[in-house]
Amino acid sequence: MVQASICTIGDEILIGQIVDTNSSRIASALESIGVRVTRMVSFGDDRDEIIGNLKEELRHNGIVIVTGGLGPTKDDITKSALAELSGSTGYAENKEQLEIIENILHSRGLDVLDINRAQALVPDRCEVIPNRLGTAPVMIFRFGDGECLHTLYSLPGVPFEAEGALPDILKDIKSHYRLTDIYHRSIMTYGIAESALSEMISEWENSLPEDMHLAYLPDPVKGVRLRLSIYGGNRADEEKRIGMEIGRLRRLLGDSIYAEDDTTLQETIGKMLKDSGKTVSVAESCTGGTISHLLTSVPGASEYYLGSVTSYAVSVKENVLGVPSAIIERYGVVSSQCAAEMAEGVRLITGSDFAISTTGVAGPGGGTDDCPVGLVWVGVTSASGTETVRFQFGNDRTRNIERFASSALDVLRKKIESETND
Amino acid sequence: MVQASICTIGDEILIGQIVDTNSSRIASALESIGVRVTRMVSFGDDRDEIIGNLKEELRHNGIVIVTGGLGPTKDDITKSALAELSGSTGYAENKEQLEIIENILHSRGLDVLDINRAQALVPDRCEVIPNRLGTAPVMIFRFGDGECLHTLYSLPGVPFEAEGALPDILKDIKSHYRLTDIYHRSIMTYGIAESALSEMISEWENSLPEDMHLAYLPDPVKGVRLRLSIYGGNRADEEKRIGMEIGRLRRLLGDSIYAEDDTTLQETIGKMLKDSGKTVSVAESCTGGTISHLLTSVPGASEYYLGSVTSYAVSVKENVLGVPSAIIERYGVVSSQCAAEMAEGVRLITGSDFAISTTGVAGPGGGTDDCPVGLVWVGVTSASGTETVRFQFGNDRTRNIERFASSALDVLRKKIESETND
Repeated sequence: MVQASICTIGDEILIGQIVDTNSSRIASALESIGVRVTRMVSFGDDRDEIIGNLKEELRHNGIVIVTGGLGPTKDDITKSALAELSGSTGYAENKEQLEIIENILHSRGLDVLDINRAQALVPDRCEVIPNRLGTAPVMIFRFGDGECLHTLYSLPGVPFEAEGALPDILKDIKSHYRLTDIYHRSIMTYGIAESALSEMISEWENSLPEDMHLAYLPDPVKGVRLRLSIYGGNRADEEKRIGMEIGRLRRLLGDSIYAEDDTTLQETIGKMLKDSGKTVSVAESCTGGTISHLLTSVPGASEYYLGSVTSYAVSVKENVLGVPSAIIERYGVVSSQCAAEMAEGVRLITGSDFAISTTGVAGPGGGTDDCPVGLVWVGVTSASGTETVRFQFGNDRTRNIERFASSALDVLRKKIESETND
Repeated sequence: MVQASICTIGDEILIGQIVDTNSSRIASALESIGVRVTRMVSFGDDRDEIIGNLKEELRHNGIVIVTGGLGPTKDDITKSALAELSGSTGYAENKEQLEIIENILHSRGLDVLDINRAQALVPDRCEVIPNRLGTAPVMIFRFGDGECLHTLYSLPGVPFEAEGALPDILKDIKSHYRLTDIYHRSIMTYGIAESALSEMISEWENSLPEDMHLAYLPDPVKGVRLRLSIYGGNRADEEKRIGMEIGRLRRLLGDSIYAEDDTTLQETIGKMLKDSGKTVSVAESCTGGTISHLLTSVPGASEYYLGSVTSYAVSVKENVLGVPSAIIERYGVVSSQCAAEMAEGVRLITGSDFAISTTGVAGPGGGTDDCPVGLVWVGVTSASGTETVRFQFGNDRTRNIERFASSALDVLRKKIESETND
């Protein structure tokens, strides 16, 4: 299998100033065409560091993808390192990139300075893919050939420019390397912890054919994604075999599975609501707007999401959502009864088909013996009636808000599923 | 200067499934105590890979911080690699961590399985810092001593657990290594782009003493943080010198500065409201709950945040917030008038002192010539009256929601500032 290393150049990464999102995007693209990423490495804007690290990565990998280290103020270091590494004897001006640079600067009303023009200069031993989204071109350096071909791709560090260069890079890789076919399928589960899940499916997992590989990919918001992969073989055959295993998994996990492929609860809910022409509203307390935030992060949410009320203060629960004060006096705000009233209240004032609510204690303070930090009541309601569910999580506020919101979305998902399947 | 390498273990990183945010947070913490991060490396859940990579990093760095590779289903590989690397001869059960594991699982109503109990087992050559936020303990392995001390810290991969472990790790590093004194001060700015900011303060920046270092740390939600640092020297003297420069900066940037130290708009707002005993409510449309989500992410927000209404549907704007239908017919929902009515409406129904509102077009669809994607109207109101502000951003939905929300918080911050300073 062709192996790759992804390298990021930049002091701003090493001091923790920016999070490197390029490597993950590049890795995911490489994996999709069957290239195995063995390492990701970040190092500083220093000539010797750059040469040393890249030599090392090229020794162990057929493909090395480098991002960053290019830009009007620090171009020189990376480029001179790449020139030395590739045995270039000088620099050549890339006419096409120079034109792009001039156009970009003119469109911003800026003059083209020498420092800008220099960005079109590349070591003479490289091939160039012009970068239409920015000023630094993509450079390709090839070392050796045939089975011993090693290729270094140098991409700009600006995330949308790096992403923009990826299709051309993948095309180049496919035309120079014999890649193993790879076939993946994922299912998304929610509500079962990774360890419990692994126990539930261990027998099935142990009976998987040798060439099939299972990965647990847990995410605090999305739940656990289970991904089955097969490398090589005949595609139609693989699809059938993997489909059979997914079928077995579905029988084991039932409605804990909410989707196939890498997706989110809110996307799944959005799709179900769109398909059934139904609408939803939300009454939040402890989740403080997070459920609404998640639902509306999906493009087109306005087709099914009507609105929400976040009622932190008791007065808002009573006056806006219409929760009777007698309910609050008798059971408290963190109660099954209050959750039910909140959901019914928001459904009434918005006129939605479905409504969910949350009321709980996110922490860090505010917990009591009866209502400890981490406790949340979720209410869900529709024309067919109202239900409430209780969840108990841990002590971390941020994490609690996240899990309260995801759990509520999962309760809503199951409710919609049960009513639209009828 | 003491050098460190940050390593991340996990196939999920190499296939691009998750973005590694731990490394950046750890790097920033190490930098703040004067440790220089030379490299960040990610590699897979494979025993030989782990041993090989960690050996290499330990050779070149006094400190190696490892995250990930721990978790109920993959513990074994990393731990056995660390056992071999450290010359451990067996495993010991850490009683304290076992208790935490039991408590966490019991509080969630889950049984303690063997796979969970195994997480309290650690190689016998390590010191343990119990992890109160999760099930995998922090392990410390020391190699050599004195000037030749190399330390490997193994942290859980879950971001909030890794972050939770950092203070103890920093303390341990400080007590085992002689670090250069470093003194930082930051100010937080909002509303001025990095390049414009750099022009505004270039004269001041060029006049800084040689031993003082300025860093621009831009963040899409927090704005641009400006950080001044001095290495070494006499602490009292440094504080005075850096304080003088911060004073100059304050005069240059005026109310674009919202706080000192690394903080957020919502924390600053929370503090001002708490100090003045005032309350706030929110009426959101295009931001879909994001402002409420940000405000309530601050512990203790219930002291000043009463609640919010997210009105995606026109009917919710009219029926819940009381926006007159004549206003919507005449000016449209994305208008200064509607923003003003929304803010006044939510202030009225919640009885808060301040209220803010947003109405705009986040995209990707829904834009028109008059109301293009990226346009948002922010309304802010209090007993002293209502104002609206218009912002125009780009085409990306996620980024727009983020910037709409932050801009609204900044409008609110300035309003509170102007009224509570009187």
